[in-house]
Amino acid sequence: MSLQDLISHKVAHEVLTEDHLPELHEHEAIGTCILYNATDLHQCDLQNVNDLPQNPDKKNTWIHWRNLNYCPETIALFDKFQLHALIAEDIINTDSRVKIEELEDSIFVSTNIPINSVDGLEMRLQHFCLVLTENTLITFSEAPDSLLGDILRRLNSPKRRIRKQGVDYLFWAILDAIADYNTLYVNNLADHLDGLEDDLIESNHSLTLPIIHATRRRITQFHRLTQPCRDIASRLTRSDSDLIAESSTLFFRDLYDHTTQTVEATEYLREQASNLLELYYTTTSHHMNEVMKVLTAVSAIFLPLTFLAGIYGMNFDYMPEIHHPAAYPIFMTLLLGIALSLTVFFKKKNWF
Amino acid sequence: MSLQDLISHKVAHEVLTEDHLPELHEHEAIGTCILYNATDLHQCDLQNVNDLPQNPDKKNTWIHWRNLNYCPETIALFDKFQLHALIAEDIINTDSRVKIEELEDSIFVSTNIPINSVDGLEMRLQHFCLVLTENTLITFSEAPDSLLGDILRRLNSPKRRIRKQGVDYLFWAILDAIADYNTLYVNNLADHLDGLEDDLIESNHSLTLPIIHATRRRITQFHRLTQPCRDIASRLTRSDSDLIAESSTLFFRDLYDHTTQTVEATEYLREQASNLLELYYTTTSHHMNEVMKVLTAVSAIFLPLTFLAGIYGMNFDYMPEIHHPAAYPIFMTLLLGIALSLTVFFKKKNWF
Amino acid sequence: MSLQDLISHKVAHEVLTEDHLPELHEHEAIGTCILYNATDLHQCDLQNVNDLPQNPDKKNTWIHWRNLNYCPETIALFDKFQLHALIAEDIINTDSRVKIEELEDSIFVSTNIPINSVDGLEMRLQHFCLVLTENTLITFSEAPDSLLGDILRRLNSPKRRIRKQGVDYLFWAILDAIADYNTLYVNNLADHLDGLEDDLIESNHSLTLPIIHATRRRITQFHRLTQPCRDIASRLTRSDSDLIAESSTLFFRDLYDHTTQTVEATEYLREQASNLLELYYTTTSHHMNEVMKVLTAVSAIFLPLTFLAGIYGMNFDYMPEIHHPAAYPIFMTLLLGIALSLTVFFKKKNWF
Amino acid sequence: MSLQDLISHKVAHEVLTEDHLPELHEHEAIGTCILYNATDLHQCDLQNVNDLPQNPDKKNTWIHWRNLNYCPETIALFDKFQLHALIAEDIINTDSRVKIEELEDSIFVSTNIPINSVDGLEMRLQHFCLVLTENTLITFSEAPDSLLGDILRRLNSPKRRIRKQGVDYLFWAILDAIADYNTLYVNNLADHLDGLEDDLIESNHSLTLPIIHATRRRITQFHRLTQPCRDIASRLTRSDSDLIAESSTLFFRDLYDHTTQTVEATEYLREQASNLLELYYTTTSHHMNEVMKVLTAVSAIFLPLTFLAGIYGMNFDYMPEIHHPAAYPIFMTLLLGIALSLTVFFKKKNWF
Amino acid sequence: MSLQDLISHKVAHEVLTEDHLPELHEHEAIGTCILYNATDLHQCDLQNVNDLPQNPDKKNTWIHWRNLNYCPETIALFDKFQLHALIAEDIINTDSRVKIEELEDSIFVSTNIPINSVDGLEMRLQHFCLVLTENTLITFSEAPDSLLGDILRRLNSPKRRIRKQGVDYLFWAILDAIADYNTLYVNNLADHLDGLEDDLIESNHSLTLPIIHATRRRITQFHRLTQPCRDIASRLTRSDSDLIAESSTLFFRDLYDHTTQTVEATEYLREQASNLLELYYTTTSHHMNEVMKVLTAVSAIFLPLTFLAGIYGMNFDYMPEIHHPAAYPIFMTLLLGIALSLTVFFKKKNWF
Ligand SMILES: [Mg+2]
Ligand SMILES: [Mg+2]
Ligand SMILES: [Mg+2]
Ligand SMILES: [Mg+2]
Ligand SMILES: [Mg+2]
Ligand SMILES: [Mg+2]
Ligand SMILES: [Mg+2]
Ligand SMILES: [Mg+2]
Ligand SMILES: [Mg+2]
Ligand SMILES: [Mg+2]
Ligand SMILES: [Mg+2]
Ligand SMILES: [Mg+2]
Ligand SMILES: [Mg+2]
Ligand SMILES: [Mg+2]
Ligand SMILES: [Mg+2]
Ligand SMILES: [Mg+2]
Ligand SMILES: [Mg+2]
Ligand SMILES: [Mg+2]
Ligand SMILES: [Mg+2]
Ligand SMILES: [Mg+2]
Ligand SMILES: [Mg+2]
Ligand SMILES: [Mg+2]
Ligand SMILES: [Mg+2]
Ligand SMILES: [Mg+2]
Ligand SMILES: [Mg+2]
Ligand SMILES: [Mg+2]
Ligand SMILES: [Mg+2]
Ligand SMILES: [Mg+2]
Ligand SMILES: [Mg+2]
Ligand SMILES: [Mg+2]
Ligand SMILES: [Mg+2]
Repeated sequence: MSLQDLISHKVAHEVLTEDHLPELHEHEAIGTCILYNATDLHQCDLQNVNDLPQNPDKKNTWIHWRNLNYCPETIALFDKFQLHALIAEDIINTDSRVKIEELEDSIFVSTNIPINSVDGLEMRLQHFCLVLTENTLITFSEAPDSLLGDILRRLNSPKRRIRKQGVDYLFWAILDAIADYNTLYVNNLADHLDGLEDDLIESNHSLTLPIIHATRRRITQFHRLTQPCRDIASRLTRSDSDLIAESSTLFFRDLYDHTTQTVEATEYLREQASNLLELYYTTTSHHMNEVMKVLTAVSAIFLPLTFLAGIYGMNFDYMPEIHHPAAYPIFMTLLLGIALSLTVFFKKKNWF
Repeated sequence: MSLQDLISHKVAHEVLTEDHLPELHEHEAIGTCILYNATDLHQCDLQNVNDLPQNPDKKNTWIHWRNLNYCPETIALFDKFQLHALIAEDIINTDSRVKIEELEDSIFVSTNIPINSVDGLEMRLQHFCLVLTENTLITFSEAPDSLLGDILRRLNSPKRRIRKQGVDYLFWAILDAIADYNTLYVNNLADHLDGLEDDLIESNHSLTLPIIHATRRRITQFHRLTQPCRDIASRLTRSDSDLIAESSTLFFRDLYDHTTQTVEATEYLREQASNLLELYYTTTSHHMNEVMKVLTAVSAIFLPLTFLAGIYGMNFDYMPEIHHPAAYPIFMTLLLGIALSLTVFFKKKNWF
Repeated sequence: MSLQDLISHKVAHEVLTEDHLPELHEHEAIGTCILYNATDLHQCDLQNVNDLPQNPDKKNTWIHWRNLNYCPETIALFDKFQLHALIAEDIINTDSRVKIEELEDSIFVSTNIPINSVDGLEMRLQHFCLVLTENTLITFSEAPDSLLGDILRRLNSPKRRIRKQGVDYLFWAILDAIADYNTLYVNNLADHLDGLEDDLIESNHSLTLPIIHATRRRITQFHRLTQPCRDIASRLTRSDSDLIAESSTLFFRDLYDHTTQTVEATEYLREQASNLLELYYTTTSHHMNEVMKVLTAVSAIFLPLTFLAGIYGMNFDYMPEIHHPAAYPIFMTLLLGIALSLTVFFKKKNWF
Repeated sequence: MSLQDLISHKVAHEVLTEDHLPELHEHEAIGTCILYNATDLHQCDLQNVNDLPQNPDKKNTWIHWRNLNYCPETIALFDKFQLHALIAEDIINTDSRVKIEELEDSIFVSTNIPINSVDGLEMRLQHFCLVLTENTLITFSEAPDSLLGDILRRLNSPKRRIRKQGVDYLFWAILDAIADYNTLYVNNLADHLDGLEDDLIESNHSLTLPIIHATRRRITQFHRLTQPCRDIASRLTRSDSDLIAESSTLFFRDLYDHTTQTVEATEYLREQASNLLELYYTTTSHHMNEVMKVLTAVSAIFLPLTFLAGIYGMNFDYMPEIHHPAAYPIFMTLLLGIALSLTVFFKKKNWF
Repeated sequence: MSLQDLISHKVAHEVLTEDHLPELHEHEAIGTCILYNATDLHQCDLQNVNDLPQNPDKKNTWIHWRNLNYCPETIALFDKFQLHALIAEDIINTDSRVKIEELEDSIFVSTNIPINSVDGLEMRLQHFCLVLTENTLITFSEAPDSLLGDILRRLNSPKRRIRKQGVDYLFWAILDAIADYNTLYVNNLADHLDGLEDDLIESNHSLTLPIIHATRRRITQFHRLTQPCRDIASRLTRSDSDLIAESSTLFFRDLYDHTTQTVEATEYLREQASNLLELYYTTTSHHMNEVMKVLTAVSAIFLPLTFLAGIYGMNFDYMPEIHHPAAYPIFMTLLLGIALSLTVFFKKKNWF
């Protein structure tokens, strides 16, 4: 089964969630190799390093590897390309920091792809590494291949710039696709937060609170991811490595722009999430104030009235006024007067 | 229809809102070209790059383009001036970051103009780009032309400095007009916030809260816009490009001053908006405290009295004191005494 | 009328408020010129640039100008000293940023003097500019002359260092006088805030809140003013301009010290103001808690008692216990017992 | 008793707590010395500096010292290796700052190992110092030896890299083991905090509050520890000391990665702890709001009803309506109607 | 009276408070001079600069001056050592900033010693200055001499390092003594804050609030003091002055460590103080919630019961049920049932 089969035809125009991830089939190839230059493109599946095709005319080589475990095949790949033990460790450890290492004859980038959990409230990170050496780019991915669909399509059309350039351009194109996905992810977060804000202003729904909290958590996690991504782009812009052509600098500067925009958007979202929580507090506090006023007004009107009624419920023998025929209507009028004037008073104070 | 016709006679002395924006007419020119030097000025409309007039005596050229879509005319313009694909992308993508790129033979500036929504509670950004090359300035604008009215008027009067200088001065003059508009915008925000503060101190109106929130949001958004504007001014001040004359440095330093002032004013506003919200909390909390004191005092006075009245409403056969003629007046005096002393007590504690 | 007459004999040992400002008389001179060296001092009023006295022996010259409008006299002064149009704009625009410009043959400083409003709750800024050129210092002031009183007195006494040094020392002396005034202003703010803190701890007076808010606002505004003042001092310390003698460096370092101290004191005040507001909240919240406890205790004692009394106020025909002679005293003892034990319970919980 | 005996066979896969610490036996050796190269390894206990074995073939030497008091044996060790008085002071003072000193012929690192108190709510720091000189590494440890168990096991197997490299590799391996332990510790903190969050969302248990506070305190303390640890790693990455081989740089860069990851995780935890406390507030405030609504609704329903019932409990002689046979059922129906409509009203306002 | 007599035998192992300060006697010497080298030490009191002993063999000289007023004796001292007027001003102005000035032939340090007020709630600063010139150290002190007791004792013992080194070592020793005192002070603050935390968790005592506020204020003030102290140590570490021997660098680095530790401890305390206040809020809010629940439960139980009892207290002629013998016990059972079920309901909701 080839990489091309794997990628769904929809490009990554939606944030990935765990239940959309294609399940890996049992006998699936753990690697794909693409040899290409301006005129030719050859693609084959790899079960093993020995499956790597000969490359006598030094075509550009892209090896995409789907296995991040310490299995013999992966170790053989590391040995074949003489990756340092610590780089190998960073590839296999899926909790590695997002970072770039410029070694003598290669550039190593370790990054992560954010994937939503099924309920959309949690963010999981899928590890993704790139090793750029002379003529060859190796990518290691825990993430679904669909992210790379667009790249593959461009590679297949011989007129595209990507076919005419070296592997440094492919390296940029993949990083750019990840940056585009991150932009998509932050926009998705922003839409989610806007929805929460609308919910809050409309109905102060008590269910909103834990969702705001979870969203804020995702924003913080995403922020931790995007900042080192920007550092990677910044380092590549200023890189003096032979592996990156002078003419590619503008492309990496563009990558830097896009990652910066994502970082800034994330920082804006963090602020919005905090503001939303503040709005939640203030709204709650305002509502409580309103409720208190109603309670106080109700009590201030009926407690005195009840007391007065209680007076004439007493059983003293000598209460001369209760024997007068007009006493009852006069007293009721008095009560009504008190009730009305207190009501008007509290209405004026805007307590209802 | 010419640029001159388009611009309203009022210069941008008011913050633009969406319903003040002139609607584009169907057959409107998508570009305007102005050739000028100290003695001559020639202006014409452009439907197409081919409409560009000949310029044998190398007059200063200003091309103002109103179409930011990927239409054939715009692509032809990009080709004519050999703009890099990534620069073209930044022009057409109206969400591009505010930034400056100093390329070999040109300077590219991408910025945004803030426009209020009709209800004044939201801020939309209109994209505006400038490309400065030798003898020629190209501006791309999603924003209304009225912002440039003042520039055009100065260009038309042959005695003005702007006619005697190169396109770098025109470049500065446009950036300065945008900076002035931003100053206007931040002052407008400040007035709005001051009004909210007055509303709050006077009447603690519940309607104020979502408006404070929306204003704070606009301030944060505007802050995100102004900071990179300052960076652009700072970069231009230190630029060593041949496109900018030595003598213009002081002008760009002045631009840096104005953008800095806007940034500082925006930061001050952010702090004010936070303080206002804090004031809202504290005022609400203070009011609730007052309401609570009233409720407690009312309850503490009438609950005991009602209980005492309830005692003598009981129907026990042997309650000797109720048969005494003086019992009722004595008891009522007692109740009055309790009521008075409690009232005085709470008055002294300042609970009413 | 001379500068000397104008300045009140009290030096600026008090923060200026708007109603202490001397009103400008109609026919008052708009400028004063002082020519001085170690042996001579000559002072004259200026209505016009033409009134400037001859200065054949190149005495130090101080021109103090009181008009910041775009009137012909001021324009003539700008022309006479060939000030750049943008510098002139910064002088006349009284909202200019606090800043320093080191030009080729002059140093320009724009700053502001804080003046209290009559009620002491608002801060207004008076513009003050200095232009230092060879042998000549020009000061432009919207602020009252009294600030400069001390300088003038020192200039008049021939033994003072100020008479023996160049205009760079005078330039420093004026900036130092402004720094001293700012120190005075921040101390005044600190005293005001201490007073508010005492008010708050003693009586939690509801009037305090908007005053704390206004004071905090003044502190923020003052902070915005003092920070660029420090930058000016810092720049002058490191200046390599010919206009400032080597031997003056220590003086500008001292100025830097004083401005730094003001900035730090202002930052401390900001923190204090925030802490004060927090204290206000917490105190309010603590008071509300106390009030709530009283309300709850009162309700928890009297609601059950009232209910019990209500029971024996019912008119059922067959309520055997009410006919027993001992019923009333027993019941009353029961009520008393309940009341007492609840009171003791709440006293122990410290709810009264 | 040897170092090997001391270390428990479980490696430090759990955070250490005080009651898991092995107690030091009375006659225990206060030091252990290990001489090793690729072929040989010799280990002996030290009671004294004189016990140090001869080392004619310049094997790598690791001296592990367990006594951090100012006893004669420790002083003799300091003298033997000519440690500067101030370094000696930093070793013996168990409150020393976490730091690195690059001296002429040695590198000194002072760090701390976090140990939980028995109840898991407090963090204690155990001092740990390393002195790297030519061919010799001396470690001083207040912390339990078990942390070093893994190192010793690797040293004992002749095929491991650690045996083939110099003491700089051993130096790195020990620092890496400490970094791994810190990662373990921060993960333990994260699990603890997640548990608290679950507790809070499920049951808002009042016991949670002081535990959140104590956890937050541990996080802050741990943050203070990890930041200088990162600085140490950063300094070692850039070190030009002869004591550290060029080839080790990548290892120290890896150490830098791990410490950075710990710092970032700690900062994320701090934010989470603050968010958790905010969630606690908001939840409390939301609950109080709910409680208030119930109280207000109950009062608003029953206070008027009680008053109305009180009216017909009065004993006026002339209350004509009470003599009508239908009065009682009509009145009761009225009361029921009021009660029902108020209940419906408050249900609609969602107050129950 | 000599310096030695003055210093109390207890070294500064306690934080100084105002009532522990030794009062200056009327005829006390305003200065002390100590001449020393490795073999000799000569000490004498000074009333005057003329009392300064001859120093033909260029011994190290320490002059300790206790008068910081503008008296003739102090001015004579300034003149004798040719101190610059601005340095003299910084010595005499006891509010001077904490700072270091490296002049051509001397190093000037201005610092402050924190002293507690008698009630322990406020912090006063005592000014302390050091001037290091060739062979001579002059100290100016508003602070009590006891701080220097330990230094003097070390000077008096001929075997101590301090006697064998130059005045730069003495300069360091005094700064180190001050740093040690600051460490003591911050530990004292930490103990105080821990006590407050215990008070708060145990009893939520209302008296705690203003004390937390005052302590937080002391911490902020102390923070402002310690940060420039660290800068001084940092500057001395990197100093290239001839006055400081190369071999002293390690000592100043140690001083830098100690001051850094104090700064970090102070920052930790600030955070703790803020957390403590937050804990105070949350605890208050939690308590109020508990109180509210009690109030609501009490009201929700007794208001309906009282109403029901009120029904059967009405005097309608035709209330058939009240004539039935079983009515009273049935009704009472009903009330009891309502009371019990409501109680169980609120118990289950954990409102008691
Ligand atoms: Mg891109
Ligand atoms: Mg992109
Ligand atoms: Mg979070
Ligand atoms: Mg995160
Ligand atoms: Mg991550
Ligand atoms: Mg771009
Ligand atoms: Mg301008
Ligand atoms: Mg402007
Ligand atoms: Mg916002
Ligand atoms: Mg924006
Ligand atoms: Mg933006
Ligand atoms: Mg200007
Ligand atoms: Mg706020
Ligand atoms: Mg001064
Ligand atoms: Mg001053
Ligand atoms: Mg403010
Ligand atoms: Mg201001
Ligand atoms: Mg200002
Ligand atoms: Mg000074
Ligand atoms: Mg490691
Ligand atoms: Mg590790
Ligand atoms: Mg903490
Ligand atoms: Mg610690
Ligand atoms: Mg620490
Ligand atoms: Mg690694
Ligand atoms: Mg020390
Ligand atoms: Mg110390
Ligand atoms: Mg404070
Ligand atoms: Mg202070
Ligand atoms: Mg200070
Ligand atoms: Mg030390």
